[in-house]
Amino acid sequence: MPFVSIRILEGHPQARKDEISRRVTAAISEVAELPKEAVWVVFEDVRAEDWYVGDTPVSVLRQRAK
Amino acid sequence: MPFVSIRILEGHPQARKDEISRRVTAAISEVAELPKEAVWVVFEDVRAEDWYVGDTPVSVLRQRAK
Amino acid sequence: MPFVSIRILEGHPQARKDEISRRVTAAISEVAELPKEAVWVVFEDVRAEDWYVGDTPVSVLRQRAK
Amino acid sequence: MPFVSIRILEGHPQARKDEISRRVTAAISEVAELPKEAVWVVFEDVRAEDWYVGDTPVSVLRQRAK
Amino acid sequence: MPFVSIRILEGHPQARKDEISRRVTAAISEVAELPKEAVWVVFEDVRAEDWYVGDTPVSVLRQRAK
Amino acid sequence: MPFVSIRILEGHPQARKDEISRRVTAAISEVAELPKEAVWVVFEDVRAEDWYVGDTPVSVLRQRAK
Repeated sequence: MPFVSIRILEGHPQARKDEISRRVTAAISEVAELPKEAVWVVFEDVRAEDWYVGDTPVSVLRQRAK
Repeated sequence: MPFVSIRILEGHPQARKDEISRRVTAAISEVAELPKEAVWVVFEDVRAEDWYVGDTPVSVLRQRAK
Repeated sequence: MPFVSIRILEGHPQARKDEISRRVTAAISEVAELPKEAVWVVFEDVRAEDWYVGDTPVSVLRQRAK
Repeated sequence: MPFVSIRILEGHPQARKDEISRRVTAAISEVAELPKEAVWVVFEDVRAEDWYVGDTPVSVLRQRAK
Repeated sequence: MPFVSIRILEGHPQARKDEISRRVTAAISEVAELPKEAVWVVFEDVRAEDWYVGDTPVSVLRQRAK
Repeated sequence: MPFVSIRILEGHPQARKDEISRRVTAAISEVAELPKEAVWVVFEDVRAEDWYVGDTPVSVLRQRAK
């Protein structure tokens, strides 16, 4: 009955989430010996302005990296 | 001082959330013997594309069920 | 597919959690028109020393209230 | 490696979040003796209609307070 | 900068968590094109008595399944 | 009504949590113009074995750093 919450910066397309979810579910299901249907994965998109690393929003870190 | 987070698929109208919140708050308040004001309930809507059960998004499960 | 997380001060006995869970699940199931099995409720106990209201831990607030 | 999630009513401008994040990161970094870069702070905006206190949504509490 | 929280029933040994974490981190890192170090995975063990499915704690469901 | 969850490695003494909580609550209260009592801060201790960075548990990273 694992519940997996993935907080991730918004912008990743559905195909990526599908692939991540597929591999995360397989990993937990196989290693923990649980049916795949028992695994719930939820993506929680976070705006780059709302995620701070070392008190700087990722939106700013990205601009600096350019 | 309970804090209740309800992750639920988006789309439920305000009246449903009001009713769920009313009953959840009453349950916790009465059973745990706490004033109603001490109970916070937060709904966190999740898009059907972001919620995977057994590695399939609920948006796809719904289409299959039609 | 709602996932309900209830952060609550530790110390509530199992019977109370059972009753809260029963009423919370019934509320969501009936109002949102979902099978009961689709509702997961998880209690996350928090020590009174780890929960601060207005920057004072609940363990201290309780002592003051005596 | 602290991870700080701040659920807050939506509507606070970026400058406020920047300032809160700056002070929260400094507090944890200084007190826990960790590099600032090890602290992640994420704001999770909640609509006033989705946050219930004592079973009343904050959107309604605000109207009553006017 | 993804943050992955895995709520799982307590009792899984460290080697399983290591393996799940390894595969989850690889999945997100490869698919989202992020350095592995940017992925944080946290396991949050839940007692079987605290996890309810359809208002029945998993500890009871397990006894019934025997 | 902000709710602040601080996931942090276990082992920080109460005095540190008190000080962090005091400064976090002051920051949010002053910047967001809210009464201090409206701010809840909860510490959620995580074992070093349960927190993975780049797929390595912090308990191992610490041993390597010695």
